[in-house]
Amino acid sequence: MNVGIVGGTGYGAVELMRFLTNHQAVENIHLYSQSKQGTPISEVYPHLASIIDNPMEELTVEHVAEHIDVLFFATPPAVSHQWVPALLETDVKIIDLSGDFRLSDPAVYEAWYKKTTASEAYLKQAAFGLADVYPEKIKHAQLIANPGCYPTATLLGLLPVIDQDFIDPQSIIVDGKTGVSGAGRSLSQGMHYAEMNENTRAYAIGTHKHTPEIERFLSEKTEKSIYINFTPHVVPMTRGILVTMYVNVTKNVSEAAIRERFISFYQDRTFVRVKPSHSLPETKQVYGSNYCDLHITVDERTKRLIIVSVIDNLVKGASGQAIQNMNLIYDLDETEGLNLSPLYP
Amino acid sequence: MNVGIVGGTGYGAVELMRFLTNHQAVENIHLYSQSKQGTPISEVYPHLASIIDNPMEELTVEHVAEHIDVLFFATPPAVSHQWVPALLETDVKIIDLSGDFRLSDPAVYEAWYKKTTASEAYLKQAAFGLADVYPEKIKHAQLIANPGCYPTATLLGLLPVIDQDFIDPQSIIVDGKTGVSGAGRSLSQGMHYAEMNENTRAYAIGTHKHTPEIERFLSEKTEKSIYINFTPHVVPMTRGILVTMYVNVTKNVSEAAIRERFISFYQDRTFVRVKPSHSLPETKQVYGSNYCDLHITVDERTKRLIIVSVIDNLVKGASGQAIQNMNLIYDLDETEGLNLSPLYP
Amino acid sequence: MNVGIVGGTGYGAVELMRFLTNHQAVENIHLYSQSKQGTPISEVYPHLASIIDNPMEELTVEHVAEHIDVLFFATPPAVSHQWVPALLETDVKIIDLSGDFRLSDPAVYEAWYKKTTASEAYLKQAAFGLADVYPEKIKHAQLIANPGCYPTATLLGLLPVIDQDFIDPQSIIVDGKTGVSGAGRSLSQGMHYAEMNENTRAYAIGTHKHTPEIERFLSEKTEKSIYINFTPHVVPMTRGILVTMYVNVTKNVSEAAIRERFISFYQDRTFVRVKPSHSLPETKQVYGSNYCDLHITVDERTKRLIIVSVIDNLVKGASGQAIQNMNLIYDLDETEGLNLSPLYP
Amino acid sequence: MNVGIVGGTGYGAVELMRFLTNHQAVENIHLYSQSKQGTPISEVYPHLASIIDNPMEELTVEHVAEHIDVLFFATPPAVSHQWVPALLETDVKIIDLSGDFRLSDPAVYEAWYKKTTASEAYLKQAAFGLADVYPEKIKHAQLIANPGCYPTATLLGLLPVIDQDFIDPQSIIVDGKTGVSGAGRSLSQGMHYAEMNENTRAYAIGTHKHTPEIERFLSEKTEKSIYINFTPHVVPMTRGILVTMYVNVTKNVSEAAIRERFISFYQDRTFVRVKPSHSLPETKQVYGSNYCDLHITVDERTKRLIIVSVIDNLVKGASGQAIQNMNLIYDLDETEGLNLSPLYP
Repeated sequence: MNVGIVGGTGYGAVELMRFLTNHQAVENIHLYSQSKQGTPISEVYPHLASIIDNPMEELTVEHVAEHIDVLFFATPPAVSHQWVPALLETDVKIIDLSGDFRLSDPAVYEAWYKKTTASEAYLKQAAFGLADVYPEKIKHAQLIANPGCYPTATLLGLLPVIDQDFIDPQSIIVDGKTGVSGAGRSLSQGMHYAEMNENTRAYAIGTHKHTPEIERFLSEKTEKSIYINFTPHVVPMTRGILVTMYVNVTKNVSEAAIRERFISFYQDRTFVRVKPSHSLPETKQVYGSNYCDLHITVDERTKRLIIVSVIDNLVKGASGQAIQNMNLIYDLDETEGLNLSPLYP
Repeated sequence: MNVGIVGGTGYGAVELMRFLTNHQAVENIHLYSQSKQGTPISEVYPHLASIIDNPMEELTVEHVAEHIDVLFFATPPAVSHQWVPALLETDVKIIDLSGDFRLSDPAVYEAWYKKTTASEAYLKQAAFGLADVYPEKIKHAQLIANPGCYPTATLLGLLPVIDQDFIDPQSIIVDGKTGVSGAGRSLSQGMHYAEMNENTRAYAIGTHKHTPEIERFLSEKTEKSIYINFTPHVVPMTRGILVTMYVNVTKNVSEAAIRERFISFYQDRTFVRVKPSHSLPETKQVYGSNYCDLHITVDERTKRLIIVSVIDNLVKGASGQAIQNMNLIYDLDETEGLNLSPLYP
Repeated sequence: MNVGIVGGTGYGAVELMRFLTNHQAVENIHLYSQSKQGTPISEVYPHLASIIDNPMEELTVEHVAEHIDVLFFATPPAVSHQWVPALLETDVKIIDLSGDFRLSDPAVYEAWYKKTTASEAYLKQAAFGLADVYPEKIKHAQLIANPGCYPTATLLGLLPVIDQDFIDPQSIIVDGKTGVSGAGRSLSQGMHYAEMNENTRAYAIGTHKHTPEIERFLSEKTEKSIYINFTPHVVPMTRGILVTMYVNVTKNVSEAAIRERFISFYQDRTFVRVKPSHSLPETKQVYGSNYCDLHITVDERTKRLIIVSVIDNLVKGASGQAIQNMNLIYDLDETEGLNLSPLYP
Repeated sequence: MNVGIVGGTGYGAVELMRFLTNHQAVENIHLYSQSKQGTPISEVYPHLASIIDNPMEELTVEHVAEHIDVLFFATPPAVSHQWVPALLETDVKIIDLSGDFRLSDPAVYEAWYKKTTASEAYLKQAAFGLADVYPEKIKHAQLIANPGCYPTATLLGLLPVIDQDFIDPQSIIVDGKTGVSGAGRSLSQGMHYAEMNENTRAYAIGTHKHTPEIERFLSEKTEKSIYINFTPHVVPMTRGILVTMYVNVTKNVSEAAIRERFISFYQDRTFVRVKPSHSLPETKQVYGSNYCDLHITVDERTKRLIIVSVIDNLVKGASGQAIQNMNLIYDLDETEGLNLSPLYP
């Protein structure tokens, strides 16, 4: 299999390379970069020296059509949608790690991203790559909208119960905590080590781009327009997302029953682990891996369901899930290239 | 002024020493420790060498009566309540940093702490030392129950609005993020550097001891029994607490009006800073200082008020507020010994 | 291939499991533990849930003889030497990650470790598992003394030049910086997160156990008794070692010539990367991987050669090199199971 | 006393403000900035809100002459030397935290800084502000060259022995480890949190600007031209420097005798603490404070003296020492405004 990566110098691309170089079915990796054509990736990322030394290339539809079976976009918002229509004319499979194809309505995209994306017709062609929930749709798609990091952790936590009659789907509060790699490689004062170290802050309260992506799939499952509160925070670590979700419980239901529902919902899903009551998830327990760990509590005093979900934002929240989607498309073992224990400690 | 500190080897005590050695009115500091009598504190904490080298002493009521004006308890749960009744017979002022006198009902204490405390009569004698809200009561008390770290950050965020008709006081969700020093100096696997570094986790979901302390003062203000959801998390940093509070808004009210209410509520309170809309609080912006920074958002989409509060858990959340309470009792400038800029970066 | 790990609850064992579960030739993994028999490893380390759930077993020579091809000791000092004599009577290959078989003289071991080890006859049977320097000896050994973390980083930096006439082999100063995982999983005040975070310190100045291990192999190569200064430091990170070595240059020699010598010395050694002049090694560039990156500077002002070496202390400095040694013994591709890019960022 | 700070937006300036707002003799603080005139400092640094809110002003010689008693330069290289000649015509005292006046020879400055500074006549007018070694010279100077962070830690460790006959002054190797705040507030990829976290690296091997500053004062004391090896490293923490110094011992001398020499050398120097043998210095033990902790080992095996020195790079290594120099000039208690315990943990 020949794969291509667009946006070769971001963290998403680098993480794709880590998994692809450990993947039995991958033969060649082409890196496309507008800004760094001709530069070996190992000059940008010295840790890749002697692992991937090939120079970055210019992206053209022709080059892709001729050399590539699967093309990953690991690009900022509003890039991939400019290339996808022409690429869909070829046989290449496209897995887009950006947000361009995750929403079904271009107007909603524009409202939250302050940029434009593809037209609705193209958006509808994309399968949403939440691999542990929608594997069948993914297998038959040419274009995958790979989910955002927060939506992955949040939807895996909410989809098993959102349509159940014992909760109020309009009561959802999502409090997210992420490591800094989610903000990418671009420099900013807030991510300067001296100022981010020993620091925690909220950001984008009520305005984070991932909000409509979460709401879309909750709404589709319930066939109602669901609105959530989503407040992201950044904490001083490189990798990991922990999402805490609060849902009002409206009928008598036991914690054990809800846990059973989760276990059954994710039966045979290697990468989703429903934790026992006494074992709270920790971001370090999924570090560097494609796992999502979930935990359920029912607080009887306040009649609220509290769901905790942890992932590695760069793996299950981006590149790992993208590889999982590639495996699904090619009918490979879903875990190929991803079969790695979390790195601990 | 002569001060004594019981529990000399914990972080609370060490932080008291930092402020007391910078305090103009303090002449002598006596350290009491059961386990380390005779040992200079600078052997336990070498950073204090040449600053405080006096040996730790045995605590007796007689010694306190003779030598001490203000006695701080920086002890684990269920210690101070054994000493307080006898000490109240003397003239000493007592500031208890433990939870023993923070709840009004011994049964509630026992239910959450799984230990016993003093009888209700003694609990009623204690003034709750939330210095920026109850200064008048504090000034006239002999016994201060110094608030917990989470309750300080949370109550400073909620008390300005809890009794207002535009919110639902039973809808409150409190999501806390703390640095590890809140867990104290005792060793545990979860606080081992290799396992806490690059790690975030929730703990004590629905069962944290600080829950009834927060509920007590919300209930007193509203004259209703208020129940909250409180979920604490630990993030990889030494100091700092950030609390995110979610409250349902039930009537039309503007964000600006709520912010004005906060500003007016904390008028003349040096250590509480209400932040403008564009400036989100960060734990690092209060690092090592006695400030509490507060921020208000109204999310119009979901009709929720989101309040963010940050403090240094060891200062405003413990020792700094204890010094502020001492200043109030002695009618000193409230900021004496505490008038330090946060340490940044 | 059936492998066994003794000391199943330490970081060395956990890291072995990460690589062994990614290794094509490994069929079964047996974990031996005296203290936790019957407990699944995934209860001690929840990140292993659904990856390795088998219970820990009792170590006996008979069990090993019957079920195990390669046995790893990931035990504290003075454990493995009690088992090895009996195990050498069986066909099992033994890779000892502890220091018990790294020195050739039991008296030297006792002087530095303050414990006793095996007799000289057994010590002589062990091949020193510095895989990138002594592969031939390793291939034919039944017992491997897997090198310490500091000795690995240091010897890989010094062996290419120690016997050259342009340096003074008695002038060597080794200044090491390690992450905290090198201190293992046992709790201590110095490794408590609140006290290790934002902290750097030297330790064991002039007395670190790894000193005689480094001196032994420098002495063997030069056929002189070499003494070095070795000063280790711990810095606030979980993984990684950076060693800075200072050597007096006694004759005219160019930096380029020395670099060429390193490149030629490590020709065909996949896991040793000699860096170009402009690219200084960073511990993060080998994070989680089996690479050792080396850099050479000649300071013309002071006539000193400065060598910088970085490894991941738990991988190349322990478990990764142990797997590499297993591959060498079984004549497998040396990189099998280890062929993973460093984790970045 | 009225003080001014040039370069108001850097970490040096912010740290000056922390101490100056805690200083009894300081009445007004003027901040000068070319780029941010009119902006309140609390907009650049929100942690200063309600502490220092005054807007930054334009620097002119006239304004300084009229309003300022002591002027601090906390500016990048090659700025202060452009202002100092004119300012020396006024009565203002100048404390320059940059390197412009630390070397006595403009050619040496140019060789290491790749920039030009003032002429030799002006350089000679500056007193080197190593407050614990040269207090008398400082008291009578109008212009102070405040030492660099590494030179402070290193010279305090070496000056007590550099001229003694039991060491070889040409054998000195200095291995430095610094937190990232030493690199300042300017953004760079290497200081991006995601890439600096969990990372240690050497930098500027053999070429660091602080080398000639250290060599100058070692040479002056010995009346020989001393050359040293200086290799700085950056470790993942915000504050703190630990310097490890290696010196060949040429005559029999006991560790105890050298320690006594240090104790006597720093008699009555509040901010230098010579540690006992069993207590190794840690950067956290001086965090946020003006202390320098020193430790001495003699390694009998290799005949080397190993000196470890720790400071907070922003305090004793910059702004704290600058305040100490101001106190010396004004004949105030040397500890005024600085009398703060280290922040621990």
